[in-house]
Amino acid sequence: MPKQVDHRARRTLIADALFRVAAEQGLEGVSLRHVAAAAEVSTGMVQHYFRTKGEMMTFAMAVVQERQQARITERMGHLGADPGPRLLLRTLLAGVLPLDDESRAYGRVALAFLAYTSVRVEAGGPLREQTRELFGFVTGLVRAGGEAKDPEAAAAGLLATMEGLGVYLLGGHFTPEVALRALDAHLDLIFGPA
Amino acid sequence: MPKQVDHRARRTLIADALFRVAAEQGLEGVSLRHVAAAAEVSTGMVQHYFRTKGEMMTFAMAVVQERQQARITERMGHLGADPGPRLLLRTLLAGVLPLDDESRAYGRVALAFLAYTSVRVEAGGPLREQTRELFGFVTGLVRAGGEAKDPEAAAAGLLATMEGLGVYLLGGHFTPEVALRALDAHLDLIFGPA
Repeated sequence: MPKQVDHRARRTLIADALFRVAAEQGLEGVSLRHVAAAAEVSTGMVQHYFRTKGEMMTFAMAVVQERQQARITERMGHLGADPGPRLLLRTLLAGVLPLDDESRAYGRVALAFLAYTSVRVEAGGPLREQTRELFGFVTGLVRAGGEAKDPEAAAAGLLATMEGLGVYLLGGHFTPEVALRALDAHLDLIFGPA
Repeated sequence: MPKQVDHRARRTLIADALFRVAAEQGLEGVSLRHVAAAAEVSTGMVQHYFRTKGEMMTFAMAVVQERQQARITERMGHLGADPGPRLLLRTLLAGVLPLDDESRAYGRVALAFLAYTSVRVEAGGPLREQTRELFGFVTGLVRAGGEAKDPEAAAAGLLATMEGLGVYLLGGHFTPEVALRALDAHLDLIFGPA
Protein backbone atom coordinates (compact mmCIF):
# COMPACT_ATOMS: atom_id res chain seq x y z
CA MET A 1 0.00 0.00 0.00
CA PRO A 2 1.44 3.41 -0.92
CA LYS A 3 2.29 5.73 1.97
CA GLN A 4 -0.29 8.41 2.63
CA VAL A 5 1.22 11.89 2.47
CA ASP A 6 -0.11 14.39 4.97
CA HIS A 7 0.16 17.54 2.85
CA ARG A 8 -1.16 19.84 5.49
CA ALA A 9 1.36 18.67 8.10
CA ARG A 10 4.18 19.03 5.59
CA ARG A 11 3.11 22.48 4.60
CA THR A 12 2.88 23.56 8.23
CA LEU A 13 6.32 22.09 8.94
CA ILE A 14 7.86 24.01 6.04
CA ALA A 15 5.92 27.19 6.78
CA ASP A 16 7.13 27.17 10.39
CA ALA A 17 10.73 26.67 9.27
CA LEU A 18 10.35 29.49 6.74
CA PHE A 19 9.04 31.92 9.34
CA ARG A 20 11.81 30.94 11.77
CA VAL A 21 14.52 31.43 9.16
CA ALA A 22 13.10 34.82 8.11
CA ALA A 23 12.96 35.95 11.75
CA GLU A 24 16.46 34.73 12.61
CA GLN A 25 18.42 35.41 9.46
CA GLY A 26 16.36 38.06 7.70
CA LEU A 27 16.05 38.52 3.97
CA GLU A 28 19.24 36.65 3.15
CA GLY A 29 18.28 33.51 5.02
CA VAL A 30 15.14 33.12 2.95
CA SER A 31 16.36 30.70 0.28
CA LEU A 32 15.30 27.20 -0.73
CA ARG A 33 18.49 25.83 0.71
CA HIS A 34 18.23 27.51 4.13
CA VAL A 35 14.52 26.80 4.56
CA ALA A 36 14.97 23.15 3.52
CA ALA A 37 17.81 22.76 6.03
CA ALA A 38 15.73 24.34 8.82
CA ALA A 39 12.73 22.10 8.05
CA GLU A 40 15.00 19.06 7.57
CA VAL A 41 13.47 18.26 4.20
CA SER A 42 14.79 18.36 0.62
CA THR A 43 14.92 21.60 -1.38
CA GLY A 44 12.59 19.90 -3.88
CA MET A 45 9.94 19.55 -1.22
CA VAL A 46 10.21 23.22 -0.21
CA GLN A 47 9.93 24.13 -3.87
CA HIS A 48 6.73 22.13 -4.10
CA TYR A 49 5.05 24.55 -1.67
CA PHE A 50 6.95 27.80 -2.33
CA ARG A 51 8.34 28.27 -5.80
CA THR A 52 10.11 31.62 -5.47
CA LYS A 53 11.74 33.84 -2.88
CA GLY A 54 8.90 36.30 -3.48
CA GLU A 55 6.34 33.68 -2.48
CA MET A 56 8.35 32.84 0.63
CA MET A 57 8.70 36.49 1.68
CA THR A 58 5.00 37.18 1.08
CA PHE A 59 4.01 34.13 3.11
CA ALA A 60 6.30 35.05 6.03
CA MET A 61 4.83 38.57 6.05
CA ALA A 62 1.27 37.18 6.02
CA VAL A 63 2.14 35.07 9.08
CA VAL A 64 3.39 38.22 10.85
CA GLN A 65 0.24 40.16 10.03
CA GLU A 66 -2.03 37.36 11.20
CA ARG A 67 -0.24 36.73 14.49
CA GLN A 68 0.25 40.43 15.26
CA GLN A 69 -3.42 41.10 14.64
CA ALA A 70 -4.46 38.21 16.90
CA ARG A 71 -2.13 39.47 19.64
CA ILE A 72 -3.42 43.04 19.47
CA THR A 73 -7.08 42.06 19.21
CA GLU A 74 -6.62 39.98 22.35
CA ARG A 75 -5.00 42.90 24.20
CA MET A 76 -7.74 45.27 23.13
CA GLY A 77 -10.30 42.76 24.39
CA HIS A 78 -8.82 43.12 27.88
CA LEU A 79 -9.37 46.87 28.00
CA GLY A 80 -12.90 46.70 29.33
CA ALA A 81 -16.17 48.15 28.04
CA ASP A 82 -15.26 51.71 27.07
CA PRO A 83 -11.52 52.31 27.04
CA GLY A 84 -11.75 55.49 24.94
CA PRO A 85 -9.82 56.31 21.76
CA ARG A 86 -6.50 57.17 23.37
CA LEU A 87 -6.08 53.93 25.30
CA LEU A 88 -7.23 51.88 22.30
CA LEU A 89 -4.67 53.63 20.13
CA ARG A 90 -1.91 53.24 22.69
CA THR A 91 -2.65 49.53 23.00
CA LEU A 92 -2.59 49.14 19.22
CA LEU A 93 0.59 51.12 18.58
CA ALA A 94 2.58 49.75 21.54
CA GLY A 95 1.38 46.26 20.60
CA VAL A 96 3.15 46.48 17.26
CA LEU A 97 6.46 47.64 18.79
CA PRO A 98 9.21 44.98 19.05
CA LEU A 99 9.42 44.94 22.84
CA ASP A 100 9.58 41.18 23.52
CA ASP A 101 11.03 38.15 21.72
CA GLU A 102 7.84 37.35 19.86
CA SER A 103 7.25 40.85 18.53
CA ARG A 104 10.96 41.24 17.74
CA ALA A 105 10.72 38.16 15.52
CA TYR A 106 7.71 39.72 13.78
CA GLY A 107 9.53 43.03 13.45
CA ARG A 108 12.60 41.46 11.84
CA VAL A 109 10.48 39.66 9.26
CA ALA A 110 8.51 42.85 8.56
CA LEU A 111 11.72 44.88 8.14
CA ALA A 112 13.14 42.29 5.76
CA PHE A 113 9.90 42.42 3.80
CA LEU A 114 9.91 46.24 3.70
CA ALA A 115 13.48 46.22 2.39
CA TYR A 116 12.49 43.56 -0.15
CA THR A 117 9.49 45.54 -1.41
CA SER A 118 11.33 48.89 -1.52
CA VAL A 119 13.14 47.57 -4.62
CA ARG A 120 10.18 45.44 -5.83
CA VAL A 121 7.29 47.80 -5.27
CA GLU A 122 4.78 45.47 -6.99
CA ALA A 123 5.31 42.86 -4.23
CA GLY A 124 4.16 45.32 -1.57
CA GLY A 125 0.47 45.45 -2.58
CA PRO A 126 -1.01 43.51 0.37
CA LEU A 127 1.11 45.45 2.86
CA ARG A 128 0.01 48.79 1.37
CA GLU A 129 -3.59 47.62 1.65
CA GLN A 130 -3.02 46.82 5.33
CA THR A 131 -1.46 50.25 5.95
CA ARG A 132 -4.44 51.88 4.22
CA GLU A 133 -6.87 50.09 6.55
CA LEU A 134 -4.81 50.84 9.64
CA PHE A 135 -4.54 54.49 8.57
CA GLY A 136 -8.34 54.73 8.32
CA PHE A 137 -8.80 53.10 11.73
CA VAL A 138 -6.23 55.33 13.44
CA THR A 139 -7.66 58.45 11.79
CA GLY A 140 -11.08 57.54 13.21
CA LEU A 141 -9.65 57.19 16.72
CA VAL A 142 -7.78 60.50 16.48
CA ARG A 143 -10.95 62.19 15.25
CA ALA A 144 -12.92 60.65 18.14
CA GLY A 145 -10.33 62.13 20.53
CA GLY A 146 -11.48 65.50 19.25
CA GLU A 147 -8.28 67.54 19.77
CA ALA A 148 -6.37 67.30 16.48
CA LYS A 149 -6.73 70.09 13.92
CA ASP A 150 -5.95 67.73 11.03
CA PRO A 151 -6.80 64.17 12.19
CA GLU A 152 -5.45 62.56 9.02
CA ALA A 153 -2.06 64.23 9.33
CA ALA A 154 -1.94 63.37 13.03
CA ALA A 155 -2.81 59.74 12.27
CA ALA A 156 -0.13 59.51 9.57
CA GLY A 157 2.39 60.95 12.04
CA LEU A 158 1.41 58.43 14.72
CA LEU A 159 1.72 55.50 12.31
CA ALA A 160 5.10 56.79 11.17
CA THR A 161 6.23 57.14 14.79
CA MET A 162 5.23 53.54 15.47
CA GLU A 163 7.08 52.33 12.36
CA GLY A 164 10.18 54.39 13.10
CA LEU A 165 10.29 53.37 16.76
CA GLY A 166 10.13 49.76 15.56
CA VAL A 167 13.13 50.29 13.30
CA TYR A 168 15.11 52.03 16.06
CA LEU A 169 14.25 49.30 18.59
CA LEU A 170 15.23 46.47 16.23
CA GLY A 171 18.56 48.11 15.49
CA GLY A 172 19.27 48.82 19.16
CA HIS A 173 19.22 52.61 18.59
CA PHE A 174 16.55 53.28 21.22
CA THR A 175 15.85 51.46 24.48
CA PRO A 176 12.27 50.26 25.12
CA GLU A 177 12.00 52.97 27.80
CA VAL A 178 12.88 55.78 25.34
CA ALA A 179 10.55 54.35 22.69
CA LEU A 180 7.54 54.18 25.02
CA ARG A 181 8.25 57.67 26.40
CA ALA A 182 8.34 58.97 22.83
CA LEU A 183 5.06 57.23 21.96
CA ASP A 184 3.30 58.55 25.07
CA ALA A 185 4.63 62.06 24.52
CA HIS A 186 3.28 61.96 20.97
CA LEU A 187 -0.13 60.78 22.22
CA ASP A 188 -0.07 63.57 24.86
CA LEU A 189 0.48 66.10 22.10
CA ILE A 190 -2.48 64.81 20.11
CA PHE A 191 -4.97 64.00 22.89
CA GLY A 192 -3.78 66.33 25.61
CA PRO A 193 -1.95 65.04 28.71
CA ALA A 194 -3.23 61.65 29.94
CA MET B 1 57.63 48.05 -18.46
CA PRO B 2 54.87 46.87 -16.10
CA LYS B 3 51.56 48.65 -16.37
CA GLN B 4 50.89 51.17 -13.57
CA VAL B 5 47.69 50.37 -11.69
CA ASP B 6 45.63 53.34 -10.58
CA HIS B 7 44.25 51.90 -7.35
CA ARG B 8 42.23 54.92 -6.43
CA ALA B 9 40.41 55.01 -9.77
CA ARG B 10 39.68 51.30 -9.51
CA ARG B 11 38.40 51.60 -6.00
CA THR B 12 36.13 54.50 -6.98
CA LEU B 13 34.83 52.55 -9.97
CA ILE B 14 33.95 49.56 -7.80
CA ALA B 15 32.56 51.71 -4.98
CA ASP B 16 30.23 53.51 -7.42
CA ALA B 17 29.02 50.20 -8.84
CA LEU B 18 28.48 48.87 -5.32
CA PHE B 19 26.40 51.88 -4.29
CA ARG B 20 24.36 51.68 -7.51
CA VAL B 21 23.66 47.96 -7.04
CA ALA B 22 22.64 48.47 -3.40
CA ALA B 23 20.30 51.33 -4.38
CA GLU B 24 18.72 49.47 -7.30
CA GLN B 25 18.56 45.89 -6.08
CA GLY B 26 18.76 46.27 -2.31
CA LEU B 27 20.31 43.81 0.06
CA GLU B 28 20.13 40.87 -2.32
CA GLY B 29 21.97 42.62 -5.11
CA VAL B 30 24.99 43.18 -2.91
CA SER B 31 27.15 40.20 -3.85
CA LEU B 32 30.59 39.86 -5.37
CA ARG B 33 29.04 38.64 -8.59
CA HIS B 34 26.51 41.45 -9.01
CA VAL B 35 28.91 44.21 -8.05
CA ALA B 36 31.62 42.84 -10.37
CA ALA B 37 29.11 42.71 -13.23
CA ALA B 38 27.96 46.28 -12.57
CA ALA B 39 31.54 47.56 -12.44
CA GLU B 40 32.55 45.40 -15.43
CA VAL B 41 35.50 43.91 -13.57
CA SER B 42 36.32 40.43 -12.28
CA THR B 43 34.94 39.16 -8.97
CA GLY B 44 38.57 38.79 -7.86
CA MET B 45 39.12 42.50 -8.27
CA VAL B 46 36.00 43.36 -6.23
CA GLN B 47 37.20 40.96 -3.58
CA HIS B 48 40.51 42.79 -3.44
CA TYR B 49 38.73 45.92 -2.16
CA PHE B 50 35.72 44.42 -0.35
CA ARG B 51 36.18 41.01 1.15
CA THR B 52 32.73 40.33 2.59
CA LYS B 53 29.11 41.32 2.14
CA GLY B 54 29.34 43.02 5.52
CA GLU B 55 32.15 45.26 4.27
CA MET B 56 30.15 46.09 1.15
CA MET B 57 27.00 46.94 3.12
CA THR B 58 28.93 49.06 5.60
CA PHE B 59 30.64 50.93 2.80
CA ALA B 60 27.37 51.59 0.93
CA MET B 61 25.82 52.92 4.15
CA ALA B 62 28.82 55.19 4.77
CA VAL B 63 28.36 56.65 1.27
CA VAL B 64 24.70 57.37 2.08
CA GLN B 65 25.57 59.08 5.36
CA GLU B 66 28.25 61.24 3.76
CA ARG B 67 26.14 62.35 0.78
CA GLN B 68 23.02 62.91 2.86
CA GLN B 69 24.95 65.01 5.34
CA ALA B 70 26.49 67.11 2.54
CA ARG B 71 23.05 67.65 0.99
CA ILE B 72 21.45 68.70 4.26
CA THR B 73 24.34 70.92 5.35
CA GLU B 74 24.04 72.72 2.03
CA ARG B 75 20.31 73.24 2.46
CA MET B 76 20.77 74.50 5.99
CA GLY B 77 23.38 76.94 4.68
CA HIS B 78 20.70 78.53 2.49
CA LEU B 79 18.39 79.30 5.40
CA GLY B 80 19.92 82.68 6.21
CA ALA B 81 21.41 84.06 9.41
CA ASP B 82 18.91 83.05 12.10
CA PRO B 83 16.34 80.55 10.85
CA GLY B 84 15.26 79.46 14.33
CA PRO B 85 15.06 75.91 15.68
CA ARG B 86 11.82 74.87 13.97
CA LEU B 87 12.91 75.72 10.44
CA LEU B 88 16.33 74.15 11.03
CA LEU B 89 14.67 70.98 12.23
CA ARG B 90 12.16 70.92 9.37
CA THR B 91 14.97 71.32 6.86
CA LEU B 92 16.92 68.52 8.48
CA LEU B 93 14.03 66.05 8.79
CA ALA B 94 12.47 66.74 5.38
CA GLY B 95 15.96 66.56 3.86
CA VAL B 96 16.31 62.93 4.94
CA LEU B 97 12.93 61.89 3.48
CA PRO B 98 13.02 59.99 0.17
CA LEU B 99 11.22 62.61 -1.91
CA ASP B 100 13.37 62.67 -5.06
CA ASP B 101 15.40 60.10 -7.01
CA GLU B 102 18.63 60.86 -5.18
CA SER B 103 17.19 60.58 -1.68
CA ARG B 104 15.15 57.52 -2.68
CA ALA B 105 18.39 55.80 -3.68
CA TYR B 106 19.85 56.72 -0.26
CA GLY B 107 16.70 55.53 1.47
CA ARG B 108 16.73 52.14 -0.23
CA VAL B 109 20.35 51.55 0.74
CA ALA B 110 19.63 52.65 4.31
CA LEU B 111 16.60 50.34 4.55
CA ALA B 112 18.63 47.40 3.23
CA PHE B 113 21.29 48.19 5.82
CA LEU B 114 18.72 48.44 8.64
CA ALA B 115 17.29 45.06 7.68
CA TYR B 116 20.82 43.66 7.48
CA THR B 117 21.78 44.95 10.94
CA SER B 118 18.49 43.91 12.59
CA VAL B 119 19.74 40.31 12.38
CA ARG B 120 23.44 41.25 12.81
CA VAL B 121 23.25 43.83 15.54
CA GLU B 122 27.06 44.09 15.87
CA ALA B 123 27.29 45.49 12.32
CA GLY B 124 25.09 48.44 13.27
CA GLY B 125 27.57 50.22 15.55
CA PRO B 126 28.39 53.19 13.29
CA LEU B 127 24.72 53.74 12.48
CA ARG B 128 23.77 53.69 16.18
CA GLU B 129 26.51 56.25 16.82
CA GLN B 130 25.05 58.47 14.09
CA THR B 131 21.54 58.17 15.57
CA ARG B 132 22.94 59.07 18.99
CA GLU B 133 24.49 62.27 17.60
CA LEU B 134 21.39 63.17 15.62
CA PHE B 135 19.25 62.53 18.71
CA GLY B 136 21.40 64.96 20.73
CA PHE B 137 21.23 67.61 18.02
CA VAL B 138 17.44 67.31 17.59
CA THR B 139 16.90 67.35 21.36
CA GLY B 140 18.85 70.63 21.51
CA LEU B 141 16.66 72.19 18.83
CA VAL B 142 13.44 71.03 20.51
CA ARG B 143 14.68 72.44 23.82
CA ALA B 144 15.56 75.75 22.10
CA GLY B 145 11.95 75.87 20.79
CA GLY B 146 10.91 76.03 24.43
CA GLU B 147 7.46 74.41 24.20
CA ALA B 148 8.02 70.70 24.84
CA LYS B 149 7.50 69.31 28.34
CA ASP B 150 9.96 66.46 27.74
CA PRO B 151 12.34 67.58 24.95
CA GLU B 152 14.08 64.20 24.78
CA ALA B 153 10.87 62.25 24.29
CA ALA B 154 9.69 64.81 21.72
CA ALA B 155 13.00 64.53 19.85
CA ALA B 156 12.84 60.71 19.87
CA GLY B 157 9.29 60.95 18.49
CA LEU B 158 10.35 63.32 15.73
CA LEU B 159 13.25 61.10 14.69
CA ALA B 160 10.95 58.08 14.67
CA THR B 161 8.41 59.99 12.56
CA MET B 162 11.13 60.85 10.05
CA GLU B 163 12.29 57.22 9.92
CA GLY B 164 8.77 55.83 9.63
CA LEU B 165 7.73 58.33 6.95
CA GLY B 166 10.82 57.26 5.01
CA VAL B 167 9.77 53.61 5.20
CA TYR B 168 6.19 54.43 4.14
CA LEU B 169 7.38 56.60 1.26
CA LEU B 170 9.82 53.98 -0.04
CA GLY B 171 7.10 51.32 0.01
CA GLY B 172 4.55 53.59 -1.68
CA HIS B 173 2.27 53.54 1.40
CA PHE B 174 2.17 57.33 1.76
CA THR B 175 2.32 60.03 -0.90
CA PRO B 176 4.91 62.82 -0.49
CA GLU B 177 2.02 65.19 0.24
CA VAL B 178 0.71 63.05 3.14
CA ALA B 179 4.23 62.57 4.52
CA LEU B 180 5.01 66.31 4.58
CA ARG B 181 1.61 67.14 6.09
CA ALA B 182 2.30 64.58 8.83
CA LEU B 183 5.75 66.03 9.49
CA ASP B 184 4.47 69.61 9.64
CA ALA B 185 1.57 68.60 11.90
CA HIS B 186 4.03 66.92 14.25
CA LEU B 187 6.21 70.05 14.29
CA ASP B 188 3.10 72.18 14.95
CA LEU B 189 2.32 70.01 17.96
CA ILE B 190 5.81 70.45 19.38
CA PHE B 191 6.53 74.08 18.49
CA GLY B 192 3.00 75.47 18.27
CA PRO B 193 1.44 76.42 14.90
CA ALA B 194 3.93 77.89 12.38
